[in-house]
Amino acid sequence: MSTTFSYQKLFDFSRTIFIKIGCPEADAATAAKALLSADLRGVDSHGVARLSGYIRLWEVQRVNAAPAIRVVHETPSTAVVDGDRGLGLVVAPFAMQVAIDKAKQAGTGWVSVRNSNHFGIAGYHAMMALQHDMIGIAMTNASALVAPTFAKERMLGTNPIAVTIPAGAEPAFVADFATTTAANGKLEILQRKNQDAPEGWVLTKEGEPSTNANEIKNGGMLLPLGGDKEHGSHKGYALGAVVDIFSAILSGASYGPWVPPFPAYIPMPVNMPGEGLGHFFGAMRIDAFRTAGEFKDHMDNWIKRFRSAKTIAGQERVIIPGDPEREMETERMQHGIPLLQPVIDDLQSLADKFGVVL
Amino acid sequence: MSTTFSYQKLFDFSRTIFIKIGCPEADAATAAKALLSADLRGVDSHGVARLSGYIRLWEVQRVNAAPAIRVVHETPSTAVVDGDRGLGLVVAPFAMQVAIDKAKQAGTGWVSVRNSNHFGIAGYHAMMALQHDMIGIAMTNASALVAPTFAKERMLGTNPIAVTIPAGAEPAFVADFATTTAANGKLEILQRKNQDAPEGWVLTKEGEPSTNANEIKNGGMLLPLGGDKEHGSHKGYALGAVVDIFSAILSGASYGPWVPPFPAYIPMPVNMPGEGLGHFFGAMRIDAFRTAGEFKDHMDNWIKRFRSAKTIAGQERVIIPGDPEREMETERMQHGIPLLQPVIDDLQSLADKFGVVL
Repeated sequence: MSTTFSYQKLFDFSRTIFIKIGCPEADAATAAKALLSADLRGVDSHGVARLSGYIRLWEVQRVNAAPAIRVVHETPSTAVVDGDRGLGLVVAPFAMQVAIDKAKQAGTGWVSVRNSNHFGIAGYHAMMALQHDMIGIAMTNASALVAPTFAKERMLGTNPIAVTIPAGAEPAFVADFATTTAANGKLEILQRKNQDAPEGWVLTKEGEPSTNANEIKNGGMLLPLGGDKEHGSHKGYALGAVVDIFSAILSGASYGPWVPPFPAYIPMPVNMPGEGLGHFFGAMRIDAFRTAGEFKDHMDNWIKRFRSAKTIAGQERVIIPGDPEREMETERMQHGIPLLQPVIDDLQSLADKFGVVL
Repeated sequence: MSTTFSYQKLFDFSRTIFIKIGCPEADAATAAKALLSADLRGVDSHGVARLSGYIRLWEVQRVNAAPAIRVVHETPSTAVVDGDRGLGLVVAPFAMQVAIDKAKQAGTGWVSVRNSNHFGIAGYHAMMALQHDMIGIAMTNASALVAPTFAKERMLGTNPIAVTIPAGAEPAFVADFATTTAANGKLEILQRKNQDAPEGWVLTKEGEPSTNANEIKNGGMLLPLGGDKEHGSHKGYALGAVVDIFSAILSGASYGPWVPPFPAYIPMPVNMPGEGLGHFFGAMRIDAFRTAGEFKDHMDNWIKRFRSAKTIAGQERVIIPGDPEREMETERMQHGIPLLQPVIDDLQSLADKFGVVL
């Protein structure tokens, strides 16, 4: 059961809540826009369903609502940003803008971020580059849920990577994916439906293969993209590791099993080797390589050729990364965003707490 | 059955053959070193076993033995390199050096390459960055063998990605992997042993799942990392696509199903949209983010923590990317490189053709 809300209504509500906890007005709008982009694009696990989670982090003083986000080190094409414990939803757009500004001058810009919190969906931040005719890259580490190949211990987060690439007449290429076989949100969908997970998604607490969609709640682990060694899980593990290192060891954030958890009720790791979560952003100006016109013509050609590839039985078309999310955004911007009753109840609690009308 | 050859002997032989086809002496040494790095690191499919393949490309005039490799466009942190149809084994180190030089000035360097040929193993080129206290990145497109998710057509190569990251007391982190479930070389090993492939590696020509290790010879396809949609193959497909676009659409090389094939007997694709193969290289100076000393201390901590993670039954340790290849290199540098008889016969044919002693 779900009820549909307009984008504008959920945006206004989220923005108001962020203002209520003390975010400056501009930051509140930035955060609400980043948060809602997940709902628009169909990544329901990362949108308003998490609003109360962000607020709880503020309540336990792990989120600073009015941070002094600043560049602490830079070269012509790089910077390190300290997020001052701000919402990742605010810190990430700041840092991505630094990457874009660097790219305007130096051809590319690369920004590693420490002392931040969860930033919503990676794709939103990477997409900021598109309007500047730049390729955008965004990644983040996250609290440990994933067992590296051969391990039975939570060592890495789902550590997503987003890469956005401008095209011409065709829509942009927008890849945004967790470096695990399946994101945690996919398991939550199966849990609600009382269904099993496919093999290769999770391990039990003891490190045995499992198809129980509730395994994470039992102390189990997610598996890196590939699932097991025979199917290349060492590659998914390496990708997740690269995200962790670029996001946290370049910047001075915490990493690996020491990344701060999103749920505010879970205690912080002891002996954290760095400050907060880490992110990494990149922007590459297309015309730092060739003219944007030539590049876009070839991207259109690439996209059309891939879209028209012959399909396996039962499939109508080959998908270009970003297709489903873009179609969802058009649909939801027009017809609204459906929310499940538990999410609505959660938002109503926030409304009551802060004296706001949902 | 195999016979063991010393590294020096195979290096000298390869260098001499490259000189015989007209490579300048320095280029011949560069190419031999890059080629042999595959044998040393245990990637037997990409080493001297391919020497005759490179020579056949020269025989059909697809490789220019004395290319005028040049930078055709640049900004402070980027360049496009035209390989002038040179051996990728020579073009790639040139381009990686440009990336390193850019990084010295601008903090990072990013180089897209067109008009090149196969470059051996990606990891070798990325590792050039390590001695400069830089992170190294290398990727390349390759002739199409891979079906995107839902497709039954060869659209992408195995498009590998390498990322190398310096450490302190610990050895460097060196990830180097095809963006497919399994590299083609893994199938060749199963073919020699007359064994089946695991599910999720290949499709038949008609797009049906298969466990036949000879499926590629029958017109079949490799699958992207993940295998099928349920196990995240859209993520492997997106990664392979990013490699293709960064390597070829940024530079003006050919891409997707139009990438030139490695076997010289396969005709070139018609209506190629660009010139030759494409590569993409990156170098990021560690101290463009934080001091190399701090970074390396944390990398050592990261590596030690991951290496000591609890293991699943039957496994003694968690592997850090690059561990097996580094151990193999030590072993083979000391005790020699074993070559199978067909490879030795192939090298003997080259020796006879060019009047060289093997």
